[in-house]
Amino acid sequence: NVSTVDAKTSHVTHIFPGLVNIAAFVPSLSASKAALSAGFTTSLVIPLGYGNEICDRETLDQARANISASSAYGNYALSVAASPTNSKTLEEELQTDVKSLFIPFDQGNVATQVSVVAAHFASWPVDKPIVTNAKGSDLASVLLVASLNNRSVHISDVQNREDLMLIKLSKAKQLKVTCDVSVYTLFFTRDQFGAGVKALPTADDQAFIWQNLEVIDAFTVNGPPFYVSVELGEKGSPWSGVEESLPLLLTAVAEGRLTLRDVQERLHDNPIRIFGLPEQAHTQVEVVVNRSSIFPKRGKYWSPICSKPVKGAVHRVVLHGQTVFLDGAFIAVPNGKDISAAAVSHAP
Amino acid sequence: NVSTVDAKTSHVTHIFPGLVNIAAFVPSLSASKAALSAGFTTSLVIPLGYGNEICDRETLDQARANISASSAYGNYALSVAASPTNSKTLEEELQTDVKSLFIPFDQGNVATQVSVVAAHFASWPVDKPIVTNAKGSDLASVLLVASLNNRSVHISDVQNREDLMLIKLSKAKQLKVTCDVSVYTLFFTRDQFGAGVKALPTADDQAFIWQNLEVIDAFTVNGPPFYVSVELGEKGSPWSGVEESLPLLLTAVAEGRLTLRDVQERLHDNPIRIFGLPEQAHTQVEVVVNRSSIFPKRGKYWSPICSKPVKGAVHRVVLHGQTVFLDGAFIAVPNGKDISAAAVSHAP
Ligand SMILES: [Zn+2]
Ligand SMILES: [Zn+2]
Ligand SMILES: [Zn+2]
Ligand SMILES: [Zn+2]
Ligand SMILES: [Zn+2]
Ligand SMILES: [Zn+2]
Ligand SMILES: [Zn+2]
Ligand SMILES: [Zn+2]
Repeated sequence: NVSTVDAKTSHVTHIFPGLVNIAAFVPSLSASKAALSAGFTTSLVIPLGYGNEICDRETLDQARANISASSAYGNYALSVAASPTNSKTLEEELQTDVKSLFIPFDQGNVATQVSVVAAHFASWPVDKPIVTNAKGSDLASVLLVASLNNRSVHISDVQNREDLMLIKLSKAKQLKVTCDVSVYTLFFTRDQFGAGVKALPTADDQAFIWQNLEVIDAFTVNGPPFYVSVELGEKGSPWSGVEESLPLLLTAVAEGRLTLRDVQERLHDNPIRIFGLPEQAHTQVEVVVNRSSIFPKRGKYWSPICSKPVKGAVHRVVLHGQTVFLDGAFIAVPNGKDISAAAVSHAP
Repeated sequence: NVSTVDAKTSHVTHIFPGLVNIAAFVPSLSASKAALSAGFTTSLVIPLGYGNEICDRETLDQARANISASSAYGNYALSVAASPTNSKTLEEELQTDVKSLFIPFDQGNVATQVSVVAAHFASWPVDKPIVTNAKGSDLASVLLVASLNNRSVHISDVQNREDLMLIKLSKAKQLKVTCDVSVYTLFFTRDQFGAGVKALPTADDQAFIWQNLEVIDAFTVNGPPFYVSVELGEKGSPWSGVEESLPLLLTAVAEGRLTLRDVQERLHDNPIRIFGLPEQAHTQVEVVVNRSSIFPKRGKYWSPICSKPVKGAVHRVVLHGQTVFLDGAFIAVPNGKDISAAAVSHAP
């Protein structure tokens, strides 16, 4: 459905397949109306967020129950977080029940040692993805372990020049590494809100990321929208980051910084392939490109682009043949499925 | 010449082949009388020390002239230091004229980026060793680059648990990595002189190193003897570290913590193999083991073991069939050769 002249024409509508957010930050909201309205028909939930952690059977079942209770509108998948102690206790049944293993690193936290990473690489099934948010020295260690084990690894939430350089170098040497950046990392910088927001990149790092877009396999929503609002003392909404994503990306398309194909590759094609996700039949996201509008203010909630001009918007979302969102109105019943255990092999 | 009952008997003398210090710290002293008297018949000079740097043709020729002027008593080899800018300027003739490429990392200095490391790995000849003192995140990056390039690398001056763990893990996965620790790292700790000496390991790190001695390929003199005396405000001698090495190691042999074979492997066999050094004919170091003595005080100079009991000493050094040191007396003429360009392949 993608025309090759997309980036050059000023056509008004374009149809994407259902988009995938491979780093959904808050479990209970990831399959929400907000995500679906924003074009994300599939969400992979990070098993470690603000006050959430999925690290064993009990916490996995609890997260599943939470999503279920909050009514899943889109498809979702859960993953499990590696800990220093659980490499031996993630039994096969649990491994089967989740999409991936997430190896978490908090910046400034030296707890996840390389021996722990190595233990998880040794015990995690080769056909299931391993994801990490490792940065700096931790990233080098994880890439080393992946290289030594000849395993693939996905690096989530790349934020700076050095980390992207390391990934670029590894890709050039045929290491099976993929990576994503959050949409906020692409469009906002640390200093633009006048407060030195740590959750955002420096202007220099951001420029390097744009210069090396071919190294970036996926765009995500991830944690920055949440952390930026926390750092600025603003009130984020359940829609934070999700609903800004396509308008920001489509504005970049209108400005010639991205093509529609760039967006589809990073919000659908590559996520589907990297995570072995099932294709969603009769599912599409109809967007308007190159038409200026003002991003709406959502009540008392803050957004970095509220009341600002954007050049693109979601017009319609169709899920399994049913229109679920049209011209700002949500008209669906909960119909999301847990696809954690589904694994489909797509040729690269 | 090594008897298998060495470690168990209390025999008085033992004969080592000529020992190799693969990390000699001060160029002008590395082939000195002191080194030879201490049993080191070959010294590989680190091209970056206290006020010294060999990074191009000019500085290489200058270092060579300095050693020559100071009269070389033992064999020596020079290496060249990688810099962010010299990966393209180390022409073939210079590569041939040095023993190895040394990629330096100062702790707290983030200057040597992974892209620089990668550039040097890409341009340095595959049959010449690459050595680095990388630690922490830099070490992980260097090991990653080595792994991605399927190249061997030698890690010099390992000082802590995490770094040794990373090397151990890499070895277990068949990465061609070797490493050394300095003799001072084995025998002195950060806190034992009451001053938090940064050039020495913590007791915990030191214990881990001893527990993983099979991962350590070589012992060296290196920088700690110099830096310890500087940090303590003591006056080190030209013999610092060199003359303490065998007495410290032989005391550990007497105490059953090491075998004579452990020492020979790490001060001769492995260095010869890793660095492709020529064997020295009719060259040997005769030591006394298991006989207590007091380590001498050398005039105004400080040593961490001066006036303390040790259980081993160098009795005689024979170089090319000539006794050059006997019972404390040095009786040689300068006869050291520059073996920088010599490359001999020894079967592992
Ligand atoms: Zn189109
Ligand atoms: Zn699709
Ligand atoms: Zn359907
Ligand atoms: Zn409409
Ligand atoms: Zn013996
Ligand atoms: Zn030999
Ligand atoms: Zn000879
Ligand atoms: Zn004698």
